[in-house]
Amino acid sequence: MPASPYAQLEQEWRRLHAFHGALALLRWDAAVMMPRGSAEVRGEQLAALETEHHVLLTTPRITRLLDRAQANAQGLEDWQLANLREMRRQRDHAIATPVSLISRLARATSRAEAFWAEARRQNDFALFAPHLEEVLHLVRDKATLLGQALGLPPYYALVDEFSPGVSTADIDAIFKTLSRRLPSLIREAVALQAQRAPLPISGRFPVSKQRSLVVEVMRAIGFPFDRGRLDESEHPFTEGVPGDIRVTTRFDTGDLFTGLLGAMHETGHAMYDLGLPQAWRDQPVGRDRGMALEESQSLLLEMVIGRSRPFVRYLRPLLEKHFGVSGPEWEVENLYRRLTHVQRSLIRVDADELTYPIHILLRYELEKKLLSGELSVRELPEAWNTGMEQRLEVRPTGANDGCLQDIHWALGSFGYFPSYVLGAVIAAQLWESLRVHNPQLDEQIACGDFAGLFGWLREHLHSLGAKVTVKDLMKLATGQPLSAHALLRYLEAKYLESPA
Amino acid sequence: MPASPYAQLEQEWRRLHAFHGALALLRWDAAVMMPRGSAEVRGEQLAALETEHHVLLTTPRITRLLDRAQANAQGLEDWQLANLREMRRQRDHAIATPVSLISRLARATSRAEAFWAEARRQNDFALFAPHLEEVLHLVRDKATLLGQALGLPPYYALVDEFSPGVSTADIDAIFKTLSRRLPSLIREAVALQAQRAPLPISGRFPVSKQRSLVVEVMRAIGFPFDRGRLDESEHPFTEGVPGDIRVTTRFDTGDLFTGLLGAMHETGHAMYDLGLPQAWRDQPVGRDRGMALEESQSLLLEMVIGRSRPFVRYLRPLLEKHFGVSGPEWEVENLYRRLTHVQRSLIRVDADELTYPIHILLRYELEKKLLSGELSVRELPEAWNTGMEQRLEVRPTGANDGCLQDIHWALGSFGYFPSYVLGAVIAAQLWESLRVHNPQLDEQIACGDFAGLFGWLREHLHSLGAKVTVKDLMKLATGQPLSAHALLRYLEAKYLESPA
Repeated sequence: MPASPYAQLEQEWRRLHAFHGALALLRWDAAVMMPRGSAEVRGEQLAALETEHHVLLTTPRITRLLDRAQANAQGLEDWQLANLREMRRQRDHAIATPVSLISRLARATSRAEAFWAEARRQNDFALFAPHLEEVLHLVRDKATLLGQALGLPPYYALVDEFSPGVSTADIDAIFKTLSRRLPSLIREAVALQAQRAPLPISGRFPVSKQRSLVVEVMRAIGFPFDRGRLDESEHPFTEGVPGDIRVTTRFDTGDLFTGLLGAMHETGHAMYDLGLPQAWRDQPVGRDRGMALEESQSLLLEMVIGRSRPFVRYLRPLLEKHFGVSGPEWEVENLYRRLTHVQRSLIRVDADELTYPIHILLRYELEKKLLSGELSVRELPEAWNTGMEQRLEVRPTGANDGCLQDIHWALGSFGYFPSYVLGAVIAAQLWESLRVHNPQLDEQIACGDFAGLFGWLREHLHSLGAKVTVKDLMKLATGQPLSAHALLRYLEAKYLESPA
Repeated sequence: MPASPYAQLEQEWRRLHAFHGALALLRWDAAVMMPRGSAEVRGEQLAALETEHHVLLTTPRITRLLDRAQANAQGLEDWQLANLREMRRQRDHAIATPVSLISRLARATSRAEAFWAEARRQNDFALFAPHLEEVLHLVRDKATLLGQALGLPPYYALVDEFSPGVSTADIDAIFKTLSRRLPSLIREAVALQAQRAPLPISGRFPVSKQRSLVVEVMRAIGFPFDRGRLDESEHPFTEGVPGDIRVTTRFDTGDLFTGLLGAMHETGHAMYDLGLPQAWRDQPVGRDRGMALEESQSLLLEMVIGRSRPFVRYLRPLLEKHFGVSGPEWEVENLYRRLTHVQRSLIRVDADELTYPIHILLRYELEKKLLSGELSVRELPEAWNTGMEQRLEVRPTGANDGCLQDIHWALGSFGYFPSYVLGAVIAAQLWESLRVHNPQLDEQIACGDFAGLFGWLREHLHSLGAKVTVKDLMKLATGQPLSAHALLRYLEAKYLESPA
């Protein structure tokens, strides 16, 4: 008896998963190991495998099998139905954009990335502008085609790629809630912390010792070094597949928290990927539920836990052990205040969790206007600078501090930025539920015991893979709809606490 | 106007080349970087990409294009005609073995490799025997099918995969020449060196310092570290494609020559690959001319040059610089005598260049008999031990010193061993021509100047890629047919020189 259409589809996706993993390794190697002069050769390898992946995913055979499996879905389990839905979603996204547009985008973004880097070296937006123009033009075509295929407005269709099932109306509502409270909250927090400024922390922290510390913390968190690696790269990232997860961080010998918190952020991603349903690991339903969820897991570990008193209590003796540091500036309360210092600043990646959403809101508004044509690329620097001044009372002095700081648009990743704030929103909702369900959580973390934390996350989140939508996942895990209120409650409690 | 059939074929092979490079990286990573627990995931990725490579290579479209290009070959250049011939060769080899047999072989060799390792741990051939039996059975099927497709006897067809255009008659003739002289030559050399035993060399050589030495030597040789890497692995190897060549070695803190000569061997491979015609780098005609030629380039650097007085003169001050060593045992003549010490021994990879061909001859005779059924797997250990005793006057005490020492048969690589001796034969022929054409060669090497050496090799060998056969290549480069006489002349001059 020949395999059923559904079984054949699983087989097809097993192969696609292997391609996906091979591509992940090629990218990891390019960022971590590859000699500088090999970029062109690697580019050809990536393009060939990506094209092949696209061809395999969009072949008419897949469409026929999907239709036949759908028509014979009565015997399928819940998981398999969800898998079928995710298969179709992947295919719909892939088939909406013609190969010619994909390869034009690949070439344009590759050029734009190079000119973005050169423009940053010269702090001159004009060098980047024509290439951003070209990328924007092609992204607009893609958004239109994707929107037509998915029955969504163009920008929404782009967001759907990163945060499936979250609409622009959802995002607007979240930003509205945050915008009403954040500006005053930032003001109050800044005023409050002025009354109790922490002692400065300085020193030289050799990379090898920082690495030992990070490995010890990652082991405590549960990162499996027999099926994963920690390396260094210019920008921290996580690549790979469950079974071979690779995390990177960037060490700064003058600041030990850069490397540690970067690694914790990425370990958050890795722990999510490792908690995905093992039985479905090579199927679409066994994948993560998009960038918003991914980011919730990294922010939960880096921001909510990594910058909490219980975690600092766990960390303090480790700092003494690895660096031999002691003294009043290394006491828990002082470290905690350093890690929760709020400051209106120009650079997104250095922003604290209170001002961070403002950085994203600006990018969200600007990229929507760029896409619709309401804002031209030429007008972008001024719109950016004015927006920063109005919202955060700081004004960039050059393009590097302004609209040249992020690589996302050069790469054509429009619709990605909102996932950062969605991630913070989701992390706060999960944190609220976690603390209700596990009153010992703080004590466990202070002892370096993360089993309770990840036990709950695996049960309520990780193990569901992509079975339900982000919004349903939130309801199942927390009993609450997706909303920014938990984030505001968390930020108020943390940043407006009365002096001890 | 649509692209010509030939142009379409070049396009197809550009894609195959990208797959080839991606597979090389997956294998490199598995040996050098991959966490231990990720082997299964990597196995799935390799299998998926290899299968896809095979599918792309054996699709009927390729056959049609090959036939049409052949029928319209009048406008093609010499290089393109050679490329067409190599394309067909690759396709013929690929299509001869059905996918089902390939995947059965993949599974059987993967099992056999694991049991080979286990059998070695227990020094017990019986644990490995049934798995070798299974591999042998499948290799026999493959050899028969390949032989039918290529019009060659089965074993010859296997050899053709590694050393194209070299027949078993050629190999037999080479072994006949060597067998007539080597036994007495070994006897004379051993007697001679007994009169002037070198001083022992010992010490602790930290890996980081050994690495610095090896990098300095590789830079002098011309290895481009901006398009290649040096790493460590259990067994030294070279992987990658020109543009991203990766070499490994294995360091022994008690013996600095293991790591250095291992790296030089692999750098010989790398320099060949780097010298291949750049314009054809993604085409079959731009690839190396098989394992015999590859091995000739690695042996030339490791054995002929790396164990020569001029090279030791270059090396001595480097040893003093990197390890601070001095004294009579570190003088040129003593180091040279250590590096050219001849000893009848049991292990192929530790053998000197005088006894090495005997190790290969034994394997060559045994694997032919295994394949034809003349020798059973059960009888292999005794046949091995007797062969060693007859040919080298040493008898293994256990399987690890005997027929369990090499991994090749476990991997199904029958027909590979002869390339080692062919490599030594070719290296000696090239060396003879090199010295005639460049009387300054010794002086250049003693100064760490390898430009003259590689200039000649590039012009006469590397830059021809796979354009002509191994035998034609030898005639073009040296004016002489492929033969073992140059190797014997080289060995006699080196090992029977009168005491200084």
